[in-house]
Amino acid sequence: PNEQTRQAAQARQDELTKPRGALGRLEALAIRLASLQDSATPTVDRTWIAVFAGDHGVVAEGVSAYPQAVTGEMLRNFVRGGAAISVLARQLGATLEVIDLGTVTPLQLPGVQHLKLGAGTANFTHEPAMTPAQCQQALAAGRASVARALAANTQLYIGGEMGIGNTTAASALACVLLELPPQGLSGPGTGLDMQGVQHKAQVIERALTLHQAHCRDVLETLRRLGGFELAALAGAYLACAQHGVPALVDGFICSVAALCAVQLNPTCRPWLIFAHRSAELGHQAVLSRLAAEPLLDLDLRLGEGSGAALAVPLLRQACALHNGMATFAEAAVSERPR
Amino acid sequence: PNEQTRQAAQARQDELTKPRGALGRLEALAIRLASLQDSATPTVDRTWIAVFAGDHGVVAEGVSAYPQAVTGEMLRNFVRGGAAISVLARQLGATLEVIDLGTVTPLQLPGVQHLKLGAGTANFTHEPAMTPAQCQQALAAGRASVARALAANTQLYIGGEMGIGNTTAASALACVLLELPPQGLSGPGTGLDMQGVQHKAQVIERALTLHQAHCRDVLETLRRLGGFELAALAGAYLACAQHGVPALVDGFICSVAALCAVQLNPTCRPWLIFAHRSAELGHQAVLSRLAAEPLLDLDLRLGEGSGAALAVPLLRQACALHNGMATFAEAAVSERPR
Repeated sequence: PNEQTRQAAQARQDELTKPRGALGRLEALAIRLASLQDSATPTVDRTWIAVFAGDHGVVAEGVSAYPQAVTGEMLRNFVRGGAAISVLARQLGATLEVIDLGTVTPLQLPGVQHLKLGAGTANFTHEPAMTPAQCQQALAAGRASVARALAANTQLYIGGEMGIGNTTAASALACVLLELPPQGLSGPGTGLDMQGVQHKAQVIERALTLHQAHCRDVLETLRRLGGFELAALAGAYLACAQHGVPALVDGFICSVAALCAVQLNPTCRPWLIFAHRSAELGHQAVLSRLAAEPLLDLDLRLGEGSGAALAVPLLRQACALHNGMATFAEAAVSERPR
Repeated sequence: PNEQTRQAAQARQDELTKPRGALGRLEALAIRLASLQDSATPTVDRTWIAVFAGDHGVVAEGVSAYPQAVTGEMLRNFVRGGAAISVLARQLGATLEVIDLGTVTPLQLPGVQHLKLGAGTANFTHEPAMTPAQCQQALAAGRASVARALAANTQLYIGGEMGIGNTTAASALACVLLELPPQGLSGPGTGLDMQGVQHKAQVIERALTLHQAHCRDVLETLRRLGGFELAALAGAYLACAQHGVPALVDGFICSVAALCAVQLNPTCRPWLIFAHRSAELGHQAVLSRLAAEPLLDLDLRLGEGSGAALAVPLLRQACALHNGMATFAEAAVSERPR
C-alpha cells in the first residue's frame, strides 16, 4: 500500500460532486484500492478466480451432509460451467481456474489441473491431516496460482474452495488459531442438523485433544488440522501480498485460510479485502480477529469463491465512481460553505 | 406476482447444484423476480433510472448544509455525466432520464425534462408545500416516467431524487405516516452537525403543529409536507405495480415515497425491492414499517438513485445463477441422502 497515493485518493474523494462521505464504504474501498494498486485510477476489471479442491479424511467420522463423491463431481461441474462460481465468473468476465489438489478417487477431467497431493488428507482424529511435504506442496500450489494470475496481469485475485468436510477442518484450525472451543466455531456446513453439528464439534474436540500440544506454530497447526485447499489458499494470500495484488476473500473457509496467512505474516493483512459475512457459525469470530468488515451480508454459505465473486461489482463500481465522477470545480457545482 | 411461477422457481432453486439455501438471500431474490416477471428466466438487463429533482421552500428555514443552487447545478452534472448516478448508469448500461419538476431559478438544460410545476415548493412551515394541482402533476410526472420506461421494455425501474432540503420534507412526511416524533426521524442529510439536526427537528415540529390536524389522508399529507420529487416517486412506484414492473427503491427519501405509495395502495408493496439501508437517521424506521430487508448496508447517504444502482448487479447475478446453474440431474452430482 502506498501512503501518498492513499492521501491523494482521499483528497480526490473529497472533491467529487457529492457530500463528503456520502458514498459511505465505497469511498474507503476506492481509496484502499488506489493505495494497494498505487494508482490514481484503480481498476479491478481483470479478475482471476482459482478454485482449490481437495478431500478430507475426517469425513470418515460422519461430519458432512453430502457424500464425499461430490467433491469430484463438482470439479466437473466447475469446468463444464454449471456451478455457481462458473456462472458468476462468466458474467464477470473473470478467468476461472480449477485446481484439484487430491480427491479420494483420482480423477482426470479436461480443464482441471490435477496435482494429486494424495487421496484426500488423512483423518486428523487419528493423525496429522497432511505430511510436511503435502502441506508445502499445497502452499506452493497457491503461490503457483497467483504466479499464473500475475502473468495474466490480474488486478484482483479470488480464491475459492470445494471439499466435502472442509468446514470441519476450517473449524478445527480456527479453534487453535483463535484459542476458542469448537462449540462456537462449528456450524452446519452444507446442512447438518443440530445433532450433526454437535457430533461435528465432538469430532473436532477429539482432534484438538490429539494435536493441540503439538501445534507449536501456525504452519504445524495448518498441517495437522487443515486441508489441501486451506493450505493452498493461505499460500495464495501470502503470494498476493508479496506481489502486490489485492485478494478478495470469500467466506468461512477462505477467512480461516486468511487468518493463517496473517498469523504467518501480518504484513499481508492490508492486501485482503473481505467480501461477505457468511451464514456459517464461526465466520464472525474469524472476521473479528482479523478486524475485517465485510462488504456483503447475504446469508451465503456456498463457498467456491461465490461470495467473493458477488462482491466484485461493488469494487468495480467503487473504482468507476472514483475515476469517473466530476469534481466540484469541473462541474461548477457550489461547495458547502465553510 | 404469480404464485405458480414462484413455486416453480423455488423448486428449481432446490434442484440447482448447491446445498439448499446456500445462496442465501440471492435465492429468495431470484424467486421473487421470477414471480414478479412471471418468468422462469427472470432478467433485469434493461434498467431504467429516472432522477426527479425539485426545490424546497423549507430551505429558507436553514435546514441544509448546501446552498439551494446545488439542485440546479447537479441537474447539469447528471446530464453531463459527472454525477455518481451518471457514472453508475453508464456502467450498468441503464437508461438515465433527468426530470426537473421545479427549481427556484428556472433552468433550460439540454437533456433535462423541465416540467416547471413551480419555483420549488412553498415553505411548509407557513403553508402547504404544494397546491392540489401541483401534487397531482408531480404524481402524474412519476407515472409518465414509468410509461416511458415501459415503452422501452424496461425490466427494472429505479427512481432517484435530487433536491436540497428534501430530507427535511421526507422526515416531516415520515413523522405523520409513521406517527412518530421528528427527533428519531431527522438526520444530518447532506451533512448537518448536531446543532443543525436539532434545528431541523424543530422546524419539522413547527410544520407538524401547523399541518397535522389537516392530514386527513396520505395524499393530503404528501401535498402539505412532501415535495415535487417525493410525489413523483410515489406516483412512479404506484405505476410500476400497476403495470407489473419491479421497482428497486433507493435510500431514505425514496423509501418515504414508497411508504406513501404503499399506504395509498397496499397491493403495490410486492413490486418494491429495497436496495440498501442508508446512513440517514430514520431510514430504518421506514424500512421496518414496510417490513423491508434491504440488500446492501454500506453507509450510503447520497440519493440520486445511487444506492439502488449499486444493488443492480446483485439482482443480475441472482438471475444469472437462477437461469444458468446446472441442476443435480444435469450435472450428475450426488444429492444429499434423505
